[in-house]
Amino acid sequence: MPSSVDALANLPLRDDLVGLHPYGAPQLDVPILLNVNENTHGVPTDVHTAIVAAVAAATHGLNRYPDREFTELRRNLATYLGHGLTPDQLWAANGSNEVLQQILQAFGGPGRTAIGFPPTYSMYPLLASGTGTRYVTAARGAAYAMTPDATARAVRDSAANIVFLCSPNNPTGTALDLDVIEAAYEAGEDARAIIIVDEAYGEFAQKGTPSALTLLPGRPRLLVSRTMSKAFALAGARIGYLAAAPEVADALRLVRLPYHLSAITQAAANAALTHADTLLSNVEAIKVQRDRIVRELEALGLSPAPSDANFVFFGGLADPHGVWEGLLAAGVLIRDVGIPGSLRVTAGTEQETTAFLSALQKLL
Amino acid sequence: MPSSVDALANLPLRDDLVGLHPYGAPQLDVPILLNVNENTHGVPTDVHTAIVAAVAAATHGLNRYPDREFTELRRNLATYLGHGLTPDQLWAANGSNEVLQQILQAFGGPGRTAIGFPPTYSMYPLLASGTGTRYVTAARGAAYAMTPDATARAVRDSAANIVFLCSPNNPTGTALDLDVIEAAYEAGEDARAIIIVDEAYGEFAQKGTPSALTLLPGRPRLLVSRTMSKAFALAGARIGYLAAAPEVADALRLVRLPYHLSAITQAAANAALTHADTLLSNVEAIKVQRDRIVRELEALGLSPAPSDANFVFFGGLADPHGVWEGLLAAGVLIRDVGIPGSLRVTAGTEQETTAFLSALQKLL
Repeated sequence: MPSSVDALANLPLRDDLVGLHPYGAPQLDVPILLNVNENTHGVPTDVHTAIVAAVAAATHGLNRYPDREFTELRRNLATYLGHGLTPDQLWAANGSNEVLQQILQAFGGPGRTAIGFPPTYSMYPLLASGTGTRYVTAARGAAYAMTPDATARAVRDSAANIVFLCSPNNPTGTALDLDVIEAAYEAGEDARAIIIVDEAYGEFAQKGTPSALTLLPGRPRLLVSRTMSKAFALAGARIGYLAAAPEVADALRLVRLPYHLSAITQAAANAALTHADTLLSNVEAIKVQRDRIVRELEALGLSPAPSDANFVFFGGLADPHGVWEGLLAAGVLIRDVGIPGSLRVTAGTEQETTAFLSALQKLL
Repeated sequence: MPSSVDALANLPLRDDLVGLHPYGAPQLDVPILLNVNENTHGVPTDVHTAIVAAVAAATHGLNRYPDREFTELRRNLATYLGHGLTPDQLWAANGSNEVLQQILQAFGGPGRTAIGFPPTYSMYPLLASGTGTRYVTAARGAAYAMTPDATARAVRDSAANIVFLCSPNNPTGTALDLDVIEAAYEAGEDARAIIIVDEAYGEFAQKGTPSALTLLPGRPRLLVSRTMSKAFALAGARIGYLAAAPEVADALRLVRLPYHLSAITQAAANAALTHADTLLSNVEAIKVQRDRIVRELEALGLSPAPSDANFVFFGGLADPHGVWEGLLAAGVLIRDVGIPGSLRVTAGTEQETTAFLSALQKLL
């Protein structure tokens, strides 16, 4: 499919893109896909029925531009999140990647800096680069942990305009303590930094792990992003969203493409949100398998990180790439995130989890 | 809904966004909407049925990320466009605005310049600004015409990296002669300029008006953008696309958000493309009304521009804003594009066109 490298070299590509390769995990045809943290339980029947009915209704008016303000979706998202949020505090786009891109377009750009704490979501530097925002990084502590002091120091020293905090963190799986987020917010006061807490996997948190949504009151520079790709099993529908002060939505209105959210995307999202209970019961089932993976990997002598997500990051492998290949040969695709001695696996159904664990045991 | 201006001022908005207002035509609740060049014929029954069936099938797999390469859609778009195009020459995104934004991200950005020929599509400068691309303009000739010589001179003098040619032009409605496009392409040789021909309204061209698609062979810097919002009556579905050399798609892969096109968007587009015949018969009906509007406005002593689009731009009004308000009071919303003495009206159904013409006649 891709054209020759020579042909591309003849196009006037932006200088900083020359020689780059497109982002994306390998898409392989394997029976058990546990590599991109999808919700492998599929779309429940009642949710399917509701989405198709909603899309059928919306399709009658598809010749008209969609509601630019996605009014009903913002109302449904506010109801779903709770925490006293109102619709004017919600914003949505085609996947949380587009939400993050809009934030960078509004608050980043040439002359501005974003900071991330690797290993973390690999799209942050790419989104920064795509918007001309400088991207800097700061180290994590032992076992990839972040502390309030070190985080505040990194935010202050970098004078970052935008701070990416991923909680639970992808690929390591652990949620941040709220005091880390508070410390980052306070440290960003001088630069009036935008603090993004990326809670893409927020619904999978361990009991007692609080959401950064609880910190929103009185913090107009704090933004909490979420997605319907994971807990809501809608990766294919591309719906990400954000909760923040109402003026954040006003800022994003200045950079969003007009009518960026299609009428069928809005319809599908609204239908799924009215069936949140069904979807969240699958989340509970996934958490059971996630905790089982952690327990059984420990029993195998490996080092799984505690996980608040629908995946488990585990170290202690002498030959991670060999294990990845062995699993693939056994029909199980997981993710090599490029961290020495480690791999990442999505928590699937009970059967998929069993298949992964059995294949892994044979390989070790 | 919008928050207070003071609250927004407290956020660290990018400097060049301060004081701006969001883009968008007023969304008013009026019986006859002829203001944003939608296809007022609606979605035909067989197309509706096909879209709903395709979305129902796609929804079963909505828990998985969509095909990042939208393989089937590119194949269907190539078949639809013809001209010997192959799927690797096609690209699509959420509306042609996103296609244009990706082009600017790949080939524009800080230090680079885009040129447009106003009056033209008002999103070009906004998309340029959103990607940090400098936007310059060059004048048109009498009656908004563009000539090969003047166009080549403007492209050469500006040393533009990206050239926006809108054909048929929005808001004036007239298509460009191919020799204007050829001249722009040749003049852009030194700067290796990307030449974008925006054919959003291409299907409404007068008989004998050729498409810039005929110019693609041997011109790797020529890009022809299209949309399914107009002829395909799918403004609500947000599907724009592009035909060009295969290496252009490779360049856009470097800047597109991963999985930018949802599985239901792909399904809806594919279903509509298999019913292109039905949809294009409505295009013929719209062209009849478009030509009728031109004739009848001339009979009223006004100056409609010749139109290759689904709208008519007309001058000769002493008080365009008064006429716009009078039409609104009569239940007909058209567009005041801010050009002295002029207004723009979408060609609707026969009944809508009659309502517009009768109301206008009473006002004059």
